[in-house]
Amino acid sequence: MTKIRVVFFLILISNLLNAQEPARILSSVFDEALTDTTAYNNLEYLCKHTKGRIAGSAAAEKAIEFTRQALINAGADSVWLQEVPVPHWVRGIERCTVNSSVNGKKALSITSLGLSVGTDYKGISSNVIEVHDFEELKKFGTEGIHGKIVFFNRPFDNKLINTFSAYGGAVNQRTVGPSEASRYGAAAVIVRSMTQSLDNFPHTGVTRYADTVPKIPAVAVSTLDADLLSKWLRTDPSLTINLVSTCRNYPDTISYNVIGELHGSLKPSEYITVGGHIDAWDVGEGAVDDGGGCIQAIEMIRIYKKLGIKPKRTVRAVMFINEEMTGSGGKTYASEAKRKGEIHYAALESDRGVMSPLGFGFDTDGPKLEKLQSLASWFVPYKIRDFEKGGGGSDIGPLKALGALQIGYMPDSQRYFWYHHSANDTFEQVNIRELQLGSAAIASLIYLIDLFDF
Amino acid sequence: MTKIRVVFFLILISNLLNAQEPARILSSVFDEALTDTTAYNNLEYLCKHTKGRIAGSAAAEKAIEFTRQALINAGADSVWLQEVPVPHWVRGIERCTVNSSVNGKKALSITSLGLSVGTDYKGISSNVIEVHDFEELKKFGTEGIHGKIVFFNRPFDNKLINTFSAYGGAVNQRTVGPSEASRYGAAAVIVRSMTQSLDNFPHTGVTRYADTVPKIPAVAVSTLDADLLSKWLRTDPSLTINLVSTCRNYPDTISYNVIGELHGSLKPSEYITVGGHIDAWDVGEGAVDDGGGCIQAIEMIRIYKKLGIKPKRTVRAVMFINEEMTGSGGKTYASEAKRKGEIHYAALESDRGVMSPLGFGFDTDGPKLEKLQSLASWFVPYKIRDFEKGGGGSDIGPLKALGALQIGYMPDSQRYFWYHHSANDTFEQVNIRELQLGSAAIASLIYLIDLFDF
Repeated sequence: MTKIRVVFFLILISNLLNAQEPARILSSVFDEALTDTTAYNNLEYLCKHTKGRIAGSAAAEKAIEFTRQALINAGADSVWLQEVPVPHWVRGIERCTVNSSVNGKKALSITSLGLSVGTDYKGISSNVIEVHDFEELKKFGTEGIHGKIVFFNRPFDNKLINTFSAYGGAVNQRTVGPSEASRYGAAAVIVRSMTQSLDNFPHTGVTRYADTVPKIPAVAVSTLDADLLSKWLRTDPSLTINLVSTCRNYPDTISYNVIGELHGSLKPSEYITVGGHIDAWDVGEGAVDDGGGCIQAIEMIRIYKKLGIKPKRTVRAVMFINEEMTGSGGKTYASEAKRKGEIHYAALESDRGVMSPLGFGFDTDGPKLEKLQSLASWFVPYKIRDFEKGGGGSDIGPLKALGALQIGYMPDSQRYFWYHHSANDTFEQVNIRELQLGSAAIASLIYLIDLFDF
Repeated sequence: MTKIRVVFFLILISNLLNAQEPARILSSVFDEALTDTTAYNNLEYLCKHTKGRIAGSAAAEKAIEFTRQALINAGADSVWLQEVPVPHWVRGIERCTVNSSVNGKKALSITSLGLSVGTDYKGISSNVIEVHDFEELKKFGTEGIHGKIVFFNRPFDNKLINTFSAYGGAVNQRTVGPSEASRYGAAAVIVRSMTQSLDNFPHTGVTRYADTVPKIPAVAVSTLDADLLSKWLRTDPSLTINLVSTCRNYPDTISYNVIGELHGSLKPSEYITVGGHIDAWDVGEGAVDDGGGCIQAIEMIRIYKKLGIKPKRTVRAVMFINEEMTGSGGKTYASEAKRKGEIHYAALESDRGVMSPLGFGFDTDGPKLEKLQSLASWFVPYKIRDFEKGGGGSDIGPLKALGALQIGYMPDSQRYFWYHHSANDTFEQVNIRELQLGSAAIASLIYLIDLFDF
């Protein structure tokens, strides 16, 4: 061959190799994730040793320290804590007893809603008005509602394939139901648990009081007990409930986001954030919501370091604090980024469970979305196929104003609400392969997002 | 409009309506499956009242009668039992103790393999030779193996995304390992459980003895205990095991396939078979293997009847007996079909678990495969996207000779082998929505397969 031919041949080979490079990298990322148990062991520790880690709790502090160490062990170049103001809400005694002259007496499975005000130790005793939406509430009006306990009992729409849509169609009963009922003078609110599951786990979650009406105690009841209460009300509308919930709101306190980063090799001052939230409802272990999301972010760092993958941009794994109550972790992270003038290229949130990965949602459109969607071709061997408009998440949402592309990790979510915000959210519900595949999917996408400029 | 124009307009409208018809039908099928609990309740009964229903057992007879009734309740036009010869194998006392002068004494979690011969009550005591494949076995040869217990310890390859491929890469240790070891004079075989899970559930399954060598006792050991045994062998190769497994093979007996059908509206003498197997390993409840598959076939009948869907061809739900041991249910079904001169258009098997549906495999190619793959468009709203070459199943396999298109139902299988053939295969492992979505997917595909001629 002539020299020119040799050079041409070498360029051709090099291009061919480069064209294969992402496929080879993704393959090594999946191999590493699927054969290493660090992430699974980390999740087990988080679940079993920092159970009940709602923001402001001692358990949350333990979780912060554990994930800080885990990030160091994963090989992050720097790891630090970012101060965040958080609410300090503490659950108390909880008891809910139905008294019916027709049906008898029964204790219901309840859990106080996060940030709810409490009752005294004797509780509130009153009749119960069952409603399914705010229109029905309005029809009862002050005359029908005043002094009574309002029972919101609209179930999930099981016909919806997307379980998050079903959640979205019911959750306003929990978030704003208590204040809506308070407008008509309700004494307290009981909300059907936000799940498709028919069982005896009550599912908690935050309620957001309006400033304009009195704050009234609010609890969630298990779906089976919601059905029972509804049935009893049909035969005995004058039954009474005694509701005790001695939870309390204390003054705000201080907690922390945990941040670990790998410095970018070419553009170190551009950032990619990958995160979940380290706080979890106090009733469960927070395995699927959202211990798994945190651990997957740490695992991305570990995989990059282990395989020698050096992203051009600085990649951060962030454990956001206080997603569940007021979202101050995500807000603080973005405001600090803004204050420092950081350039945020993209942010991915994993907060939809740790089941088998389906894909990603991208909060953009036009040619940029199309280019992102073309990344799907690299994921064909892994059957990860959702590259759709949408996605993002509440912790990375505030980064949008800084121009960060919003990405949501989307696993299969059919069984997610069986666990969400309940005592049923335990380590045992997580399958190691489903966790591992998710870690690999996230680490792979971030690698590609960084490799190709969007 | 002129008359011709009116007629043209009506034809156009009718075509437009027809073009939408399958989408509307599929939507109603999914709605019905997702809002009805009959299938889930049926599965619960099957799991909790016919546990241990291996072919030839009293529990299997109860399961046969229960599913016969369930098919009648579902509205099948005719329901009957088809006589099938089945083996009669009964588990006995099982005990496996390691004695090591270095490491101590330990009882291992074991389960006898189906159709295995047993030991006497004192069992077999011998040294242990660990091997990972038949090449290694050959190297030890008769000199190394004779009189010893062979321990097959090749794990699943976790790098394989498809868990059935990982199973396929390991299962010959169980199916033919005992006879391979017997060629070199082994006294018994212990096989690492066929699962990726690291836990203490031993996973059983059939072993298939060669006629040419002595039949030797064979058991599976849990993966954690396999790891422990391997570790002990490294420090003490002369440790001994006492293995007791008093299982027995009795003379063959008679059992039944359960068949329910909806008569075809246009081509009643052409058949579509949809089935799972009603037998399940005696150690578990057979929820994912394969109670769910049976219940989904029954649910298809219920849904068609409830919604007034009238397939052109006769559609059968078949509960095959004895898939797990010798496959005589599937063979009998096909030989009876052949004897009667039945025309079998297509057959679908659901025997890969009851997790979220991914799609279907079709054992065909060329234009026919392409036409089948085009059905994927109807499933876009449900994110059911695998329409691939492959599929089928062991019970419908014998129908292939009669020209029946072979279809395998493919759910997500990442966590399937956590349950498969073990005491961990319980009703509680099944999520109602994942079961329901599978029923809807199967009922929808069969509707389309029948509507469009392939």
